[in-house]
Amino acid sequence: MSGRRVLLVRGNREFLLKPGETLESDLGVLELPEDVETGTTVETHLGEEYEVRRLRGPDLFDHLERTGAPMMPRDIGLVIGHTGVASDDRVLDAGTGTGVLAAYLGRLGVDVTTYERNAEFADVARENMELAGVSDNIDVRTGDLTEELDDLEETFDVVTLDTGDAAAVVEHAPELLEPGGFVATYTPFVESSRDCVEAAREAGLSEIETLETIQRQMDFDERGSRPSTAGVGHTGYLTFARFIPQLE
Amino acid sequence: MSGRRVLLVRGNREFLLKPGETLESDLGVLELPEDVETGTTVETHLGEEYEVRRLRGPDLFDHLERTGAPMMPRDIGLVIGHTGVASDDRVLDAGTGTGVLAAYLGRLGVDVTTYERNAEFADVARENMELAGVSDNIDVRTGDLTEELDDLEETFDVVTLDTGDAAAVVEHAPELLEPGGFVATYTPFVESSRDCVEAAREAGLSEIETLETIQRQMDFDERGSRPSTAGVGHTGYLTFARFIPQLE
Amino acid sequence: MSGRRVLLVRGNREFLLKPGETLESDLGVLELPEDVETGTTVETHLGEEYEVRRLRGPDLFDHLERTGAPMMPRDIGLVIGHTGVASDDRVLDAGTGTGVLAAYLGRLGVDVTTYERNAEFADVARENMELAGVSDNIDVRTGDLTEELDDLEETFDVVTLDTGDAAAVVEHAPELLEPGGFVATYTPFVESSRDCVEAAREAGLSEIETLETIQRQMDFDERGSRPSTAGVGHTGYLTFARFIPQLE
Amino acid sequence: MSGRRVLLVRGNREFLLKPGETLESDLGVLELPEDVETGTTVETHLGEEYEVRRLRGPDLFDHLERTGAPMMPRDIGLVIGHTGVASDDRVLDAGTGTGVLAAYLGRLGVDVTTYERNAEFADVARENMELAGVSDNIDVRTGDLTEELDDLEETFDVVTLDTGDAAAVVEHAPELLEPGGFVATYTPFVESSRDCVEAAREAGLSEIETLETIQRQMDFDERGSRPSTAGVGHTGYLTFARFIPQLE
Repeated sequence: MSGRRVLLVRGNREFLLKPGETLESDLGVLELPEDVETGTTVETHLGEEYEVRRLRGPDLFDHLERTGAPMMPRDIGLVIGHTGVASDDRVLDAGTGTGVLAAYLGRLGVDVTTYERNAEFADVARENMELAGVSDNIDVRTGDLTEELDDLEETFDVVTLDTGDAAAVVEHAPELLEPGGFVATYTPFVESSRDCVEAAREAGLSEIETLETIQRQMDFDERGSRPSTAGVGHTGYLTFARFIPQLE
Repeated sequence: MSGRRVLLVRGNREFLLKPGETLESDLGVLELPEDVETGTTVETHLGEEYEVRRLRGPDLFDHLERTGAPMMPRDIGLVIGHTGVASDDRVLDAGTGTGVLAAYLGRLGVDVTTYERNAEFADVARENMELAGVSDNIDVRTGDLTEELDDLEETFDVVTLDTGDAAAVVEHAPELLEPGGFVATYTPFVESSRDCVEAAREAGLSEIETLETIQRQMDFDERGSRPSTAGVGHTGYLTFARFIPQLE
Repeated sequence: MSGRRVLLVRGNREFLLKPGETLESDLGVLELPEDVETGTTVETHLGEEYEVRRLRGPDLFDHLERTGAPMMPRDIGLVIGHTGVASDDRVLDAGTGTGVLAAYLGRLGVDVTTYERNAEFADVARENMELAGVSDNIDVRTGDLTEELDDLEETFDVVTLDTGDAAAVVEHAPELLEPGGFVATYTPFVESSRDCVEAAREAGLSEIETLETIQRQMDFDERGSRPSTAGVGHTGYLTFARFIPQLE
Repeated sequence: MSGRRVLLVRGNREFLLKPGETLESDLGVLELPEDVETGTTVETHLGEEYEVRRLRGPDLFDHLERTGAPMMPRDIGLVIGHTGVASDDRVLDAGTGTGVLAAYLGRLGVDVTTYERNAEFADVARENMELAGVSDNIDVRTGDLTEELDDLEETFDVVTLDTGDAAAVVEHAPELLEPGGFVATYTPFVESSRDCVEAAREAGLSEIETLETIQRQMDFDERGSRPSTAGVGHTGYLTFARFIPQLE
């Protein structure tokens, strides 16, 4: 973890800093030692303390620059749970956006090649990967995956798609995936989910399913226990399919 | 991956084998070479082919021996998504059961110390970790975590609990967790979920929430698109809380 | 209630009988007096007792002859709740089927004109209305409502549609409805629901909404409280729209 | 319907008026004729038109005075659907509140005796029944039903409870209900729902079930179809049970 950014936290103040960097705030100047360790505290020149904490997945939502609505922790988790992705797996991703899915995967030791069509967003995503400390295993490429398919020579363990034309990539899943590998698409609409399912069927994929997830908080107070009266809305449908080559 | 078990697959037949092991089936005898590679095929002495595939997370549900209902991929994924656990994190787990959560975490490079009260189940879980190829980073201990708390000297990044008395461990979360770390409990009942929330509140934990997840499959056929008429039932409530020490 | 059928109940045996009719069963012969009252008991010639009970809405599901999957109590209730239909209202219905919705409405004093395309089903529905004791206010017509629209001279308070081509009737809602009246469609698929919404928009209807309802049972046992592990599947989408003529 | 209030509507302006009453607004003075008919228009002395519309169930939510959160149309509908209440049925209700459930039932020809503990709320509820045109069949009584149980000499077809101590009435359901009749409780919390179920079990009721209802709107726009991203929260659990006396 040496060289990785750490969180400096004090009450509501939170800063993501690299060892060796300097933080100037109303509480004074703080030079973060190169050998700082998480779980300790550091002091500004005015003697004000900050706690040094390891950056964790959910902190990414507060510290990455957003270029759109990032995928939620629940949907990221469901992609991981349903595909069973593992460390050292290779993931091909399209629709990088803010890059939270890629960062989560990178923090789990997964190698990710991710495509973002919008060059500006891709630049932000690269900075975000740097902030998240996962630049080494996330390769953010500027471009449209559907146009790059012919040039991809590797195969992948999992393909994750959060793009409007996900179905166009799903069609090519058998060429992109290792045997037994999964494609996962995140699509807000019924129509685009259906397109993915139809593309998966035509491509001969197996174990095709589209899941809709409704998640609610429970309220526990002195009056009793109940689901929250504040509902949680729809985010997106997750479609999974698996490439199972058939031996004759 | 050398030495790790691989899947031999042919149609509905699936075997989990170590390189060097021998498979005898109605299709003949097959000696799996020590240097077998996934993505290739191997032949029995009768010339019948099997595909060699990497074991993936969802395959665990077919190949691990069950000592009870294992946690579902969706709930495993939600634990990972909401805690943001990362490779090299240390997780303390109780209620090992079949060990699917531990195996998923192990496959993500997480170090897990997991307690199973039932000695027989713990033995099965150890074999399951061996099958899953994660024995190196999963330590299955026979015992009741609530009785071992005093002897634990380490701290953990995440504590995951799938036990009837999870609340009794949640109480001690501040001693068990690294700053910023999460406790996650999986409890089937409202009452046990509420106990966890109350224990988390008393322990001064932050960002406490209990989530209920309803997941449905979508049916897409020639008549149209709709949620499945076969409903998906309740599995368990997931409660998350975070240890945020407060500097004065 | 004179002349209306009553339920004769004993344990699991249930018969729907008209005063004056005779019931022969293994418990003997029973002549139901013309002046039988609910809440009493009657005896067979062998002295075996039956309880006389009023037929209630949910009993219809056990005693009407089915010509397809009847609309469920929850969806019938939602149609009533969201349209606020009242006694003496006039309802135009299409897709009679078993006639459970019509019977429920009839039992609430609503006058229903209902169309069933399948002549055989329409006959069964007429018998069902007789059994339910609502023949006086339910007019089951054999025919396709979309072809009868021009001949309808009345207007209605509520139009309820449980047909594949509901949208084709929704288009005409302004000619069919009283000011402030509602159209309600029950459609299993997203596509047919969307068609109804689009027809409602084109027809200039107001307060258009499509609702999806997920209903689950709670399990309360000695271990605790939780939603049922047996999920409840999708039935249909309910779309409501209101005819609000605009004065210039 | 003579003498019943009607809605005068023009754009967003809506007034609930009795035939013979006078409306003074910025559009002039309007004397509503005694023989006014719905579906027509009437003019102020300045020649400004209002549309005359029949009051419908959902209009009650805009025109009744609220003394708390009224039960929602969906929950009212579910009570009607699951109990199968019919015209001329007698309903015993407790926790009148705003009186929307009572008014809906009254509009369906049901006779309702409803108890409201808060005298001020009971007065408002009586006015609301007058506004809804259902004073004839709704008897709003000031008092706590649990204390009045001994004095009730009638029996009822359905008992509906929207009170904190609903379970205390459920216990007495067999004395209150006609054979085959239903008790329905609306309770926001798991604990109070469970209390009702346990009381129903102890009272020997049948067909006991607690239902939780999650309702979502669908969004249909040019991009596609999906459940609303604005979630709908929990309202209450509905518990139903039936009184089925057993002949020995």
